Amino acid sequence: MQILILNGVNLNLLGKRETNIYGLVSFDDFLISLRKKYAQITIDHFQSNEEFALVEQIQQAENKYNGIVLNAGAYTHTSIALCDAIRCVTIPVIEVHISNIFAREAYRKKSYLSEVCMGSICGFGLNSYALAIESLL
Amino acid sequence: MQILILNGVNLNLLGKRETNIYGLVSFDDFLISLRKKYAQITIDHFQSNEEFALVEQIQQAENKYNGIVLNAGAYTHTSIALCDAIRCVTIPVIEVHISNIFAREAYRKKSYLSEVCMGSICGFGLNSYALAIESLL
Amino acid sequence: MQILILNGVNLNLLGKRETNIYGLVSFDDFLISLRKKYAQITIDHFQSNEEFALVEQIQQAENKYNGIVLNAGAYTHTSIALCDAIRCVTIPVIEVHISNIFAREAYRKKSYLSEVCMGSICGFGLNSYALAIESLL
Amino acid sequence: MQILILNGVNLNLLGKRETNIYGLVSFDDFLISLRKKYAQITIDHFQSNEEFALVEQIQQAENKYNGIVLNAGAYTHTSIALCDAIRCVTIPVIEVHISNIFAREAYRKKSYLSEVCMGSICGFGLNSYALAIESLL
Amino acid sequence: MQILILNGVNLNLLGKRETNIYGLVSFDDFLISLRKKYAQITIDHFQSNEEFALVEQIQQAENKYNGIVLNAGAYTHTSIALCDAIRCVTIPVIEVHISNIFAREAYRKKSYLSEVCMGSICGFGLNSYALAIESLL
Amino acid sequence: MQILILNGVNLNLLGKRETNIYGLVSFDDFLISLRKKYAQITIDHFQSNEEFALVEQIQQAENKYNGIVLNAGAYTHTSIALCDAIRCVTIPVIEVHISNIFAREAYRKKSYLSEVCMGSICGFGLNSYALAIESLL
Amino acid sequence: MQILILNGVNLNLLGKRETNIYGLVSFDDFLISLRKKYAQITIDHFQSNEEFALVEQIQQAENKYNGIVLNAGAYTHTSIALCDAIRCVTIPVIEVHISNIFAREAYRKKSYLSEVCMGSICGFGLNSYALAIESLL
Amino acid sequence: MQILILNGVNLNLLGKRETNIYGLVSFDDFLISLRKKYAQITIDHFQSNEEFALVEQIQQAENKYNGIVLNAGAYTHTSIALCDAIRCVTIPVIEVHISNIFAREAYRKKSYLSEVCMGSICGFGLNSYALAIESLL
Amino acid sequence: MQILILNGVNLNLLGKRETNIYGLVSFDDFLISLRKKYAQITIDHFQSNEEFALVEQIQQAENKYNGIVLNAGAYTHTSIALCDAIRCVTIPVIEVHISNIFAREAYRKKSYLSEVCMGSICGFGLNSYALAIESLL
Amino acid sequence: MQILILNGVNLNLLGKRETNIYGLVSFDDFLISLRKKYAQITIDHFQSNEEFALVEQIQQAENKYNGIVLNAGAYTHTSIALCDAIRCVTIPVIEVHISNIFAREAYRKKSYLSEVCMGSICGFGLNSYALAIESLL
Amino acid sequence: MQILILNGVNLNLLGKRETNIYGLVSFDDFLISLRKKYAQITIDHFQSNEEFALVEQIQQAENKYNGIVLNAGAYTHTSIALCDAIRCVTIPVIEVHISNIFAREAYRKKSYLSEVCMGSICGFGLNSYALAIESLL
Amino acid sequence: MQILILNGVNLNLLGKRETNIYGLVSFDDFLISLRKKYAQITIDHFQSNEEFALVEQIQQAENKYNGIVLNAGAYTHTSIALCDAIRCVTIPVIEVHISNIFAREAYRKKSYLSEVCMGSICGFGLNSYALAIESLL
Repeated sequence: MQILILNGVNLNLLGKRETNIYGLVSFDDFLISLRKKYAQITIDHFQSNEEFALVEQIQQAENKYNGIVLNAGAYTHTSIALCDAIRCVTIPVIEVHISNIFAREAYRKKSYLSEVCMGSICGFGLNSYALAIESLL
Repeated sequence: MQILILNGVNLNLLGKRETNIYGLVSFDDFLISLRKKYAQITIDHFQSNEEFALVEQIQQAENKYNGIVLNAGAYTHTSIALCDAIRCVTIPVIEVHISNIFAREAYRKKSYLSEVCMGSICGFGLNSYALAIESLL
Repeated sequence: MQILILNGVNLNLLGKRETNIYGLVSFDDFLISLRKKYAQITIDHFQSNEEFALVEQIQQAENKYNGIVLNAGAYTHTSIALCDAIRCVTIPVIEVHISNIFAREAYRKKSYLSEVCMGSICGFGLNSYALAIESLL
Repeated sequence: MQILILNGVNLNLLGKRETNIYGLVSFDDFLISLRKKYAQITIDHFQSNEEFALVEQIQQAENKYNGIVLNAGAYTHTSIALCDAIRCVTIPVIEVHISNIFAREAYRKKSYLSEVCMGSICGFGLNSYALAIESLL
Repeated sequence: MQILILNGVNLNLLGKRETNIYGLVSFDDFLISLRKKYAQITIDHFQSNEEFALVEQIQQAENKYNGIVLNAGAYTHTSIALCDAIRCVTIPVIEVHISNIFAREAYRKKSYLSEVCMGSICGFGLNSYALAIESLL
Repeated sequence: MQILILNGVNLNLLGKRETNIYGLVSFDDFLISLRKKYAQITIDHFQSNEEFALVEQIQQAENKYNGIVLNAGAYTHTSIALCDAIRCVTIPVIEVHISNIFAREAYRKKSYLSEVCMGSICGFGLNSYALAIESLL
Repeated sequence: MQILILNGVNLNLLGKRETNIYGLVSFDDFLISLRKKYAQITIDHFQSNEEFALVEQIQQAENKYNGIVLNAGAYTHTSIALCDAIRCVTIPVIEVHISNIFAREAYRKKSYLSEVCMGSICGFGLNSYALAIESLL
Repeated sequence: MQILILNGVNLNLLGKRETNIYGLVSFDDFLISLRKKYAQITIDHFQSNEEFALVEQIQQAENKYNGIVLNAGAYTHTSIALCDAIRCVTIPVIEVHISNIFAREAYRKKSYLSEVCMGSICGFGLNSYALAIESLL
Repeated sequence: MQILILNGVNLNLLGKRETNIYGLVSFDDFLISLRKKYAQITIDHFQSNEEFALVEQIQQAENKYNGIVLNAGAYTHTSIALCDAIRCVTIPVIEVHISNIFAREAYRKKSYLSEVCMGSICGFGLNSYALAIESLL
Repeated sequence: MQILILNGVNLNLLGKRETNIYGLVSFDDFLISLRKKYAQITIDHFQSNEEFALVEQIQQAENKYNGIVLNAGAYTHTSIALCDAIRCVTIPVIEVHISNIFAREAYRKKSYLSEVCMGSICGFGLNSYALAIESLL
Repeated sequence: MQILILNGVNLNLLGKRETNIYGLVSFDDFLISLRKKYAQITIDHFQSNEEFALVEQIQQAENKYNGIVLNAGAYTHTSIALCDAIRCVTIPVIEVHISNIFAREAYRKKSYLSEVCMGSICGFGLNSYALAIESLL
Repeated sequence: MQILILNGVNLNLLGKRETNIYGLVSFDDFLISLRKKYAQITIDHFQSNEEFALVEQIQQAENKYNGIVLNAGAYTHTSIALCDAIRCVTIPVIEVHISNIFAREAYRKKSYLSEVCMGSICGFGLNSYALAIESLL
């Protein structure tokens, strides 16, 4: 089983900035523990601050992966392009968020992606990713 | 560890009605497999069609449980009373939904509970409950 | 043929309060004349001020009745739970209102039930119930 | 007793177009059975695609009819002129719709006529007209 | 000097219906006194319940009249067609209303015509027409 | 003189939870001092987390009490049923709130009850109840 | 007969600024011709940039004048205080505007005064004042 | 092949009024060149200022034409009746506009027809009609 | 103890105008009875129709008074300046209204002051002032 | 004559995904036939999933092309940057869409580009591009 | 060179109240350092809590000053009168704010003045004034 | 002292396009004079049409610069990603705009960046950049 974790804009700063919201662990460190926990599956990770790069990763994931775990960061709230890309693939895409986006600014409550993803998980810190992988098993 | 699963209005019909959306498994049958999977913890289940009964279960859960998995059904979208009850307890409350509420009617996109719950999980069928329990471990 | 008339919140006061809007006849008196007029069918009546009680009456009506005549009172405008319950049954549900709800406060113009009921009848006083029964024949 | 059935725009196509929504019976055929059922009263029928023609029929109905059964079609949602005409007559006007307008497009949920009609009946197919006549008796 | 008074939908009922709002004088009677008062000018009058007839009167008024006094009735609030017709003529068009439309239903506060008319006069009863003629002198 | 204090949903937790907003005094303790202060009148107290129970208390208060002091809690913002019940009684109903609801979440600024109550008092802590009683004297 | 013309904020600049919108004539010059035209009546004029001064002029006009011609300038769109003052007097108040406020910025389309004035006249340049006086005769 | 060009309200003024927006060519002149260009097909033309006449032309076009090119003028933005008529026919209807309606007043951006037409063409002057015919070939 | 009662715009007319809403008692007469009832405290009164005068009274009240009872009249709904002034003082400010503002025009339901005042009292006639003083004791 | 066809995000998937909406033909295949049909002109094609790449293509097209045919995909609904780029060039830009965007999700009805493009063509499948080229000839 | 600094409502409290937002320096002290820094120009200062006084200062500034630095305080968000006054003068008016108004309450995000001022500067504390003067040099 | 000027989408066209709004000076020419004026500090300049490139410049600026002067162009109104990036750095970011964005299209009045920047400067042409640098000194 092959899973792609796709992280969007500003998520390269995880563990370094706004640690009161996002925690102190970097995604690379978290990934080591995640891969250990789910040793039976291959977990690829791709992070980009570019909207189009995320779009293309989703486009190309169809035949290479069994599912996508997607945290699009701020693009969640503004990108119909990502929404369309998800519509184009038939493998399940799971939307995850580290923080509880519903308890933040009003413009973070709207997601263009929820409607086209299989399911959504938010508010569990980095554990949101683990739960998403769990859901794909 | 003690966990309370709280199911709200119309969820007593799970497995019997609108099976195209909610599936064919009754919650009781699902509960058996869930308890088997998480044998190390105690999982209590309470379903009610009454808003106030859910409110009181949350009020009284504080000292008896380590966490609540809450699917309030339609009350998710209309009950500030439940929202207030969740504010009153300090144990984590996880909001779950069987279907992807974001892909349905507009009035199902608004949740009074997301903001005050620790996290939200939706769209994974009955597996949403399992993921919620996983998140509490 | 068996029909259930379901009356919601505050409708136990019919004939006693706000008689300028709702008239002077109590529902019990009206029921007598209604049963006389439609002697060939069984007309059950259930009134409750509790939202959940109405929900459960609808849930259980499926196998016992050929149709439901529903005046949910104020719950018409606030209850998604009732809307969901109506979705769960396959027998026809007719929405009735005694007064013309469109000629009253703005918040009375929105009904969560119209969309899922077979049809709606409003503004004919208690005669709205008779027309609803007529429509089920 | 004299009743006028007033049918608005596009309703001349009843039984011919969009039969999945409006059914296969033409209004003329339906009228025959209606007049048979209510043999004791005179039922006149007037259909027009012109907004003003409906307005003038309502203006002139005052002294000729005991009541009007009005299905204004699309003008229901756009015509304040019809609303004003109804205000000008003192005989009861009953609003009817063949389909459940509340279960269709958002712009069909708003009626300029409901507020000034005595009552509304919708969703019962052609039977909506029969119920309206019933209500006038 | 030639002036056209253009009266729209339902205004043929002036003096007969809703006299508490519109008064007891018929427009024909009023016209006699108006022509007497402004004997030096020719005042033509055209009333129609048809939106298009008003549109065409405006289209054709350009070379025949020095100004138009327009009370479109309910079409004031719904007709972009009339608004476009007014745009097409270069003679002044004055919008008049008998009642104070700002003190009535919310949907009567919006006028598609005000923006393209030279000026607006409302609330002075039939005297609104006289003031409009005064303004054209 | 007989007065009914009616407390709604979650108000059984007064003095125990969210004490930063609602204070540390339980309602029972407060009631003792209140009755002492207004010894000349009878003060009954009823608390319920059930919307319908509040509705029925209001319905039955008519002949038993001279006035109602109502803190409906979260139902203030969602219950048209309570609003209708208040309309049905002729004795004065005073709306009270412990905290300043206008300085909190947006959805707490809207009250379905203010419009039908005689008056509103909010923001004075438990003293709001005392002021309400004062107003009824 | 005594009439008060009340001019609001920035109208002291008439004839000096924004002459493309408001024209080149000062109000004082206009007033001379106006008084000449209506020699039989007394026309007082009061201009102020102060909201409260306009309020108090209206309050005190009751016994001194037969009517008020009011151009409140920008306060038209923001002052509920003026609206309340107009409510307090029983003599007719006519709202006038020099320019066509409906053809300008969106926030100039809303008037707090129209609803409580007897009538409104706008778009006729300074002639709007003359028409208002005409209407009071 | 038979095509019907249907022009709505005020379009009889093409080439005469508002020529800065709509150009100097009359529709009749344009039609000559259009028929020359598409000599192989029959192009009928019908213009009316009456909403209902357009509705009836669409109703009757079904068996006589292979497609309709529709410029409804101002009715584009207000007529649900036309929208319904288009729904009733199965031949393709193409919406055209001479000017770019999206670069004009806000109320011209909304079209009731776009949703039910096969396609839309706007902003190309009279050439919009030619493109529409091209699309039907 | 020193308390300042601050009355805003048009409240100098109390007892004289709109007596159906505000009653027949002038504020001066009411003040005599109020001072008699609360003889142990000093009650100053200041009324002004000027927004800025109210602002400055609040600014200067800090060291002279123990609390302010504020009825800003129409400025309640439009003045952010007053809202800011209240923010600048640390003594409690109580918002009062004579009538039930929630049962009147929509634009009277919004208060810029409620959010920054300690508490609000409305709907008790002149007694609202007495309750406010009671609350400050 | 030189024309640039500019295709935006996800349009590289044409013919492969969501073929029920977008058809089975790839853009490359379509381009061959298009170039054959319009052999007298040079048709360049550029597709990118990157918003900025489209912006820069438009910036640089000014001197190289006689017109641009632009299908921005999802960026149509979100990109003010593209809107600005179109403003910066003086050659005509034609907006095209394959599907009827007005008959899809609400957020697809808003286009930031329509207002600044010369014209818009939508709903004709790949033929929309041919019509756009036709319009540029 | 002559510049007028115009400070609006509540700005007389600078340095005394809400010092966490507005700082501890009084405007008089700041003015001394400002005049020292820009010794080559004359800087006049006028503060008023009265809306009309600010209006009149702007009206009269035309011939006396080369530019105005305006901090209207709360009137920024409510005064169309000030907006109109700025329109009437031809010298540049610069809008300044001490705090970042965009990071505060929603009703502080809207400014009636920005649109008619030459430019806006906000968020730099008292230094906003210095930058405004810099911009006028 | 090191300052980064960050210019967003379409700003590479400064001095070449839409010169009526943005002026005739290219940014490179302006930069020469700016560096001359502020010789004591290092001013770096980076322009990109790519949203992500701006995001990454901000991310990396933390340790290299003392402040950022940011003109994001159209991304100002659409990019939550930029807003998040600004949140992640602790050095001051100043938002600048060349034109007065408040006097343009409605969608240019909303900025996702104002709220998280230290301050905003707009409307002073290229001088806005100089004022921003001044503010950082």
